[in-house]
Amino acid sequence: MACCGTSVCCQCCCREGETRTPEELTILGEIRDEEDEILPRKDYESLDYDRCINEPYVDVLEVMDNRKAKKYEAVRWIMVFTIGVTVGLVGLFVDFFVRLFTKVKFSLVSDSVEKCSNKGCLPLSLLELLAFNMTFVFIASVFVLIEPVAAGSGIPEIKSYLNGVKVPGIVRLRTFMCKAAGVLFSVAGGLFVGKEGPMIHSGAIVGAGLPQFQSITFKRIKFDFPYFRSDRDKRDFVSAGAAAGVAAAFGAPIGGTLFSLEEGSSFWNQALTWKVLFCSMSATFTLNFFRSGINFNKWGSFQLPGLLNFGEFKCSEEDKNCHLWTAVDLAFFVLMGVVGGLLGALFNCMNKCLAKYRIRHIHPKAKFIRVLESLLVTMVTTVMIFAASMLLGECRDLSSPTAHNTTLSGGTDINSTVRQFFCTNKTYNDMATLFFNPQEAAIHQLFHQDGTFSPVTLSVFFLLYFLLACWTYGVSVPSGLFVPSLLCGAAFGRLVANILKVKLGMDIYSGTFALIGAAAFLGGVVRMTISLTVILIESTNEITYGLPIMITLMVAKWTGDFFNKGIYDIHIQLRGVPLLEWETESFIYIEVDLLTASDIMEPNLTYVYPHTRVQSLVSILRTTVYHAFPVVTENRQNERDFMKGNILVSNNIRFKKSSVVSRAGEQRRRCQSMKSYPSSELRNVCDEQSTAVELAEEGEDLLQQMLERRHAPYPNLYPDQSPSEEWTMEERFRPLTFHGLILRSQLVNLLIRGVCYAENQSSATQPRLSYAELTEDYPRFPDIHDLDLTLLNPRMIVDVTPYMNPCPYTVSPNTRISQVFNLFRTMGLRHLPVVNAVGEIVGIITRHNLTHEFLVAKLRQHYITV
Amino acid sequence: MACCGTSVCCQCCCREGETRTPEELTILGEIRDEEDEILPRKDYESLDYDRCINEPYVDVLEVMDNRKAKKYEAVRWIMVFTIGVTVGLVGLFVDFFVRLFTKVKFSLVSDSVEKCSNKGCLPLSLLELLAFNMTFVFIASVFVLIEPVAAGSGIPEIKSYLNGVKVPGIVRLRTFMCKAAGVLFSVAGGLFVGKEGPMIHSGAIVGAGLPQFQSITFKRIKFDFPYFRSDRDKRDFVSAGAAAGVAAAFGAPIGGTLFSLEEGSSFWNQALTWKVLFCSMSATFTLNFFRSGINFNKWGSFQLPGLLNFGEFKCSEEDKNCHLWTAVDLAFFVLMGVVGGLLGALFNCMNKCLAKYRIRHIHPKAKFIRVLESLLVTMVTTVMIFAASMLLGECRDLSSPTAHNTTLSGGTDINSTVRQFFCTNKTYNDMATLFFNPQEAAIHQLFHQDGTFSPVTLSVFFLLYFLLACWTYGVSVPSGLFVPSLLCGAAFGRLVANILKVKLGMDIYSGTFALIGAAAFLGGVVRMTISLTVILIESTNEITYGLPIMITLMVAKWTGDFFNKGIYDIHIQLRGVPLLEWETESFIYIEVDLLTASDIMEPNLTYVYPHTRVQSLVSILRTTVYHAFPVVTENRQNERDFMKGNILVSNNIRFKKSSVVSRAGEQRRRCQSMKSYPSSELRNVCDEQSTAVELAEEGEDLLQQMLERRHAPYPNLYPDQSPSEEWTMEERFRPLTFHGLILRSQLVNLLIRGVCYAENQSSATQPRLSYAELTEDYPRFPDIHDLDLTLLNPRMIVDVTPYMNPCPYTVSPNTRISQVFNLFRTMGLRHLPVVNAVGEIVGIITRHNLTHEFLVAKLRQHYITV
Repeated sequence: MACCGTSVCCQCCCREGETRTPEELTILGEIRDEEDEILPRKDYESLDYDRCINEPYVDVLEVMDNRKAKKYEAVRWIMVFTIGVTVGLVGLFVDFFVRLFTKVKFSLVSDSVEKCSNKGCLPLSLLELLAFNMTFVFIASVFVLIEPVAAGSGIPEIKSYLNGVKVPGIVRLRTFMCKAAGVLFSVAGGLFVGKEGPMIHSGAIVGAGLPQFQSITFKRIKFDFPYFRSDRDKRDFVSAGAAAGVAAAFGAPIGGTLFSLEEGSSFWNQALTWKVLFCSMSATFTLNFFRSGINFNKWGSFQLPGLLNFGEFKCSEEDKNCHLWTAVDLAFFVLMGVVGGLLGALFNCMNKCLAKYRIRHIHPKAKFIRVLESLLVTMVTTVMIFAASMLLGECRDLSSPTAHNTTLSGGTDINSTVRQFFCTNKTYNDMATLFFNPQEAAIHQLFHQDGTFSPVTLSVFFLLYFLLACWTYGVSVPSGLFVPSLLCGAAFGRLVANILKVKLGMDIYSGTFALIGAAAFLGGVVRMTISLTVILIESTNEITYGLPIMITLMVAKWTGDFFNKGIYDIHIQLRGVPLLEWETESFIYIEVDLLTASDIMEPNLTYVYPHTRVQSLVSILRTTVYHAFPVVTENRQNERDFMKGNILVSNNIRFKKSSVVSRAGEQRRRCQSMKSYPSSELRNVCDEQSTAVELAEEGEDLLQQMLERRHAPYPNLYPDQSPSEEWTMEERFRPLTFHGLILRSQLVNLLIRGVCYAENQSSATQPRLSYAELTEDYPRFPDIHDLDLTLLNPRMIVDVTPYMNPCPYTVSPNTRISQVFNLFRTMGLRHLPVVNAVGEIVGIITRHNLTHEFLVAKLRQHYITV
Repeated sequence: MACCGTSVCCQCCCREGETRTPEELTILGEIRDEEDEILPRKDYESLDYDRCINEPYVDVLEVMDNRKAKKYEAVRWIMVFTIGVTVGLVGLFVDFFVRLFTKVKFSLVSDSVEKCSNKGCLPLSLLELLAFNMTFVFIASVFVLIEPVAAGSGIPEIKSYLNGVKVPGIVRLRTFMCKAAGVLFSVAGGLFVGKEGPMIHSGAIVGAGLPQFQSITFKRIKFDFPYFRSDRDKRDFVSAGAAAGVAAAFGAPIGGTLFSLEEGSSFWNQALTWKVLFCSMSATFTLNFFRSGINFNKWGSFQLPGLLNFGEFKCSEEDKNCHLWTAVDLAFFVLMGVVGGLLGALFNCMNKCLAKYRIRHIHPKAKFIRVLESLLVTMVTTVMIFAASMLLGECRDLSSPTAHNTTLSGGTDINSTVRQFFCTNKTYNDMATLFFNPQEAAIHQLFHQDGTFSPVTLSVFFLLYFLLACWTYGVSVPSGLFVPSLLCGAAFGRLVANILKVKLGMDIYSGTFALIGAAAFLGGVVRMTISLTVILIESTNEITYGLPIMITLMVAKWTGDFFNKGIYDIHIQLRGVPLLEWETESFIYIEVDLLTASDIMEPNLTYVYPHTRVQSLVSILRTTVYHAFPVVTENRQNERDFMKGNILVSNNIRFKKSSVVSRAGEQRRRCQSMKSYPSSELRNVCDEQSTAVELAEEGEDLLQQMLERRHAPYPNLYPDQSPSEEWTMEERFRPLTFHGLILRSQLVNLLIRGVCYAENQSSATQPRLSYAELTEDYPRFPDIHDLDLTLLNPRMIVDVTPYMNPCPYTVSPNTRISQVFNLFRTMGLRHLPVVNAVGEIVGIITRHNLTHEFLVAKLRQHYITV
């Protein structure tokens, strides 16, 4: 905690918009803030949610005739069901072992404490507990060492994935195994972490992996199952899997569905939603079925919905005046929401400082340092809870256990989990009851225990949880944040209830206040809205809590948003993921419409022609990192008309000026970089590059060829010609008519499979690839550097028109940003060409041009210019 | 029922796809089926969800600076809260009076029956009941006479509205009052109708009306409140209102939110969803607060969530082996789902025949015929239930009322609503218990009554409800379908439970079977999926019912979909509403991608130039019915290059050929219709039309003018020139460069407000309208025929460029239909211009080009051509 002094905290609590982000500074050409400079950044790629393919040509239709389409749909349903069941079983596995380990640990330690409290050998009990915890956490840490992305809750990663950003390794089988096994030990190890986040992540991996029937981790797992080999299908299954994870974790199938919609879905797709809900239901009921069977031996009945449930809130039969809540309580709930928001903001701020510190000082060091950190956290946690239980616990009366035996789901009595350390027969140690139990039992105690907890106990519990959970989140073990937040908040809520009930003598139901406190704090930390409301309602199984929970969450979110973002968004931001928000954020929403597509687009285009020489393609692919290339033709006829044109056209020229000038520069750079490339055959290619211009002068012959090839859907005038530096200004402003987009992976695929034709032949002689061949290598397409250039004839010509996407969504340069953003976000695009009124491409917009930081920076630039 | 013989039923049960629809036949040029010919059709218009405006020019920005944007957002929140509260109060009002009327009616009639069963004056009791019912239904019918769209449930209308179709009068204050008052009397009148559908409709009207602060019905209600004057804003509030309606009706705020998402939302908008949920919550809790207060005098507590709730399903404390359901029961639930689907399909089929009959034979006649029909239905219903109760009811034991007193919400005992007609002290008449109670009480009886109902009673009840509810839905009174379907299904479920429990001796919970039966039948009738699942779960307040309800609904939907559509879709279809489904329906989904945008677009365009003469605008507006016009310029320079062009261009010519040829024809027709127009000044306009062509020859001067007006954003070459019939083929194929879209309402507005400039002046002299002025007349913009032509100088020129939408979404002619559909549906478009690779408009796609019927017809045409 020392690293987060008051001044630093204030700094990170202040609104992000008021300091300039690195991206902004780069754009504005200013020097970066040194502090941010240190944070290492990664370049993330986007996923291809939009089907970028020339559908009629590559025979998508052939594969998917009417009968096959139905089969395909049936396979989808079977898949989501399988995913649901698998996620349920994973939940069962985690739950079973966590219970087993925790039970063994606590029963041994409790026995030891009971014995030692008489004999005075308490340090021995502490050592015993320490040994257990540190062993467990060590194992968890080792799992994370094997697969570093298995650390943390996984929700930021899944959020990024569903948003359309490829986070490497996030949905791999190895990650899954490390996460599922790791979380088991980190929870059993007594850390203040939950298993809900990791359950969601595990669910998402199951969703991504199962329908592929292959694994990168284990090369042997590979069936001949050609379905679902696209990012779009994968995303749908990941949505379903993540929802199933939530459903299994909280017994909240509707909440899970809403979670995956809130985080992932771009447009409301009824068919998908229906499948996601079915998947969630399958997960909940698989888990429920087996847990009811195993725990109560009642096979076939369904009594334990999720890993975490809040038990039943109800008034005792005797007390006729008892209400769970009344309209008057709502005012307190609003206040608690405000406090929860503030506490959440403080939590996030502290955690952000810690995370920055870790990125700078711990991650660059040797990996075992991270293990040491986890062990340190474990040690401190263990010692703290032991000391607190022994020294600060109060003995409280067990208030008439028979009169009001609140039964939890499954019929276990609430009083079966109290701990009596140092207390006489009819009393219990309240602190130990909270700390020496699994976290679920502690939640039940706070929600349902009629016997009160002392204010000191609640305060200590709250403080310890607040600080230690904050420290723990980010340590390299799999760690969820839901349960610690709930506990922390529940303690706060219970404290409020104590004050109101005991000090002010109000007639309230303590459990409701504990629940609202939990909601307020959790809402303040994670800032989720709809899905969290529904998850909490489903967990309590009480619709009447809808309004109070919703109001509390809303107030907590608004309060917290005043200071900083939600914890998951903070971690996403720290990793530099180019996440697209729901809308261009409200405080810049209006202003951002001062900009148009042409202001934010990337004007430096690397393009290909419909018919391109192999050598050019190789050179383009080797020297650029773009993932898609516009396919363009140049219209020589229009050239001269250009300069005398009207304003419309001269606008185009303005747009293009920068682009073409820099295009020439880029061409130069490209050729230079080619020359410095060690491989000899590459140098060959580059030398031939210079002859390409002369070749273009044979244009007339080619025109003749084209006339003979009337069946070709696009003219292949002037293959290969790229702008040369010797051109006049007029030549540089040649318009590029846009014909389509082609992906890097497709181009590489074409080259590898030798899809090209000789100069003196018709393009019809070019071999033809099927849809299956195009997608065979999904998700890891071969790289251009894997290509053996000696096998290629650099003078062959590739006709890309059959494989490009001939009609991607496009926007005009004058389109307002909000409209661009809407289209991009909703349709799940990766590349959005900006095409002017006469069909010429003037730029391209990708995810990076639409991030909050980029827009803010461009807006600043705009104001400076104006 | 007589009208629906077996053969007719079979005919309407068969899949719609197998007979040709009128649209198809028109397209194919075949003669229409005589039967369908008779159904009168209406042309529905679309709503403008897409903001079609030149934003920077009309100063949207000026109105909405940063501070105002926040205020705007705050106003939205206040609005949704107000809507929620109002809907809750409406629900309270309806509920209160229905209860009052029903209570008075049944207590009087019951007393009379009790007396008469001894005295033998039963016919008198029947007359008494008849008098009550017929008076109530007569009043309800009169309300519908005042406002015909208040008939029925209103869900088809709201579904159409949210889908983007303008149904006239559907969200007006008068409709609201007739609906709310009417449903009260139709329910109190003992008809087999529910109040849930009308509640949803009322909620939607409240949502549409409240934020406008004005009323068309009552001209005096008009405040100066300029916000939310657009279809898009209105739709958001209608979504919220409809959700609040569901929430109030079923106490299901989450279900309501999902309902409005399922029906209305095109893309998942987090901010909107959050507001909708808040609105639903407000409605539920307002209703809950007041009902708890009024009914139990427990102000401040919340015990009665919705108008309809299913009571609490729970096992008695004594019976430890009792389960609500087990895994084994799931198999029965699936079978019940199948049966429910079949029954639902039969119900829909019969109702469709009836509806067709009504449209043909009842609607064209005098309006009082409809009132007579409602009275006839009432009479039959009343006599039937009276006869059934008296003659077929069995006396059953009240099974130990003290041992198992299932308390309904609010603490009323289930046995308080049994009826003892003709039965001795400890028994009750089971048929009368079901019929001589409000429908909610009957549902509670079927779900929770431990005493069994006899199979005969259940069968008679089921049959009567099935037939009479089917007959009633469509009669001209406000009538929901949820409660009758639930009752009908519950009787069926209870029957199954009886058989399993009594005949097979299985250990099951009858209530669960009744619930599943209700879900199965309701699902078979309405075919809603996600929202219905959630609504039912929320109504039972029991998460564990999630899986069985979901599986049942899914099976029922699939079974039913095999025969026909859901009842709401059938009624939408019968009215000829051009609804857009979620996706191009699966069985044509794959095939439809054989078509491209150019196959389905409307190639006959009526267009305007950036600078157009007033006379031309008037002529265009008076002779066409289009709601938007593309703004185009002709590029003379390119003309000659055209014919020698390459394939790309000749493709464009192919697209355009039909369009231009028919455009010339249209021009001719337009001028003729103008000439036949009686008004003298119009004839003037048309005579001047012929001089327009000569005017165009002055083009050179205009070019000179244009050069002087360089500040104008678009060239105003050749104002007014329209293609003339004397042109050569080459002239006809002139390309039209697309610049933007302008709405009819905007053009009329410009004309009315005199926005134009004289020929010898610059277009900068044209007066400028603000955003407020443009939207002032929303939602009823003035018609072109309201325009006083004498006030206009026909030779003035209107510069439309500042007001047109300069960058609407466009698609290329080769775009696949599924992509077009996706864009159109998701973005809520009204007009989608089809623009080719060189920026020329070749056609336009509207809602009508994307309806299922149109696509199927085009596909047939495609196959015939191929």
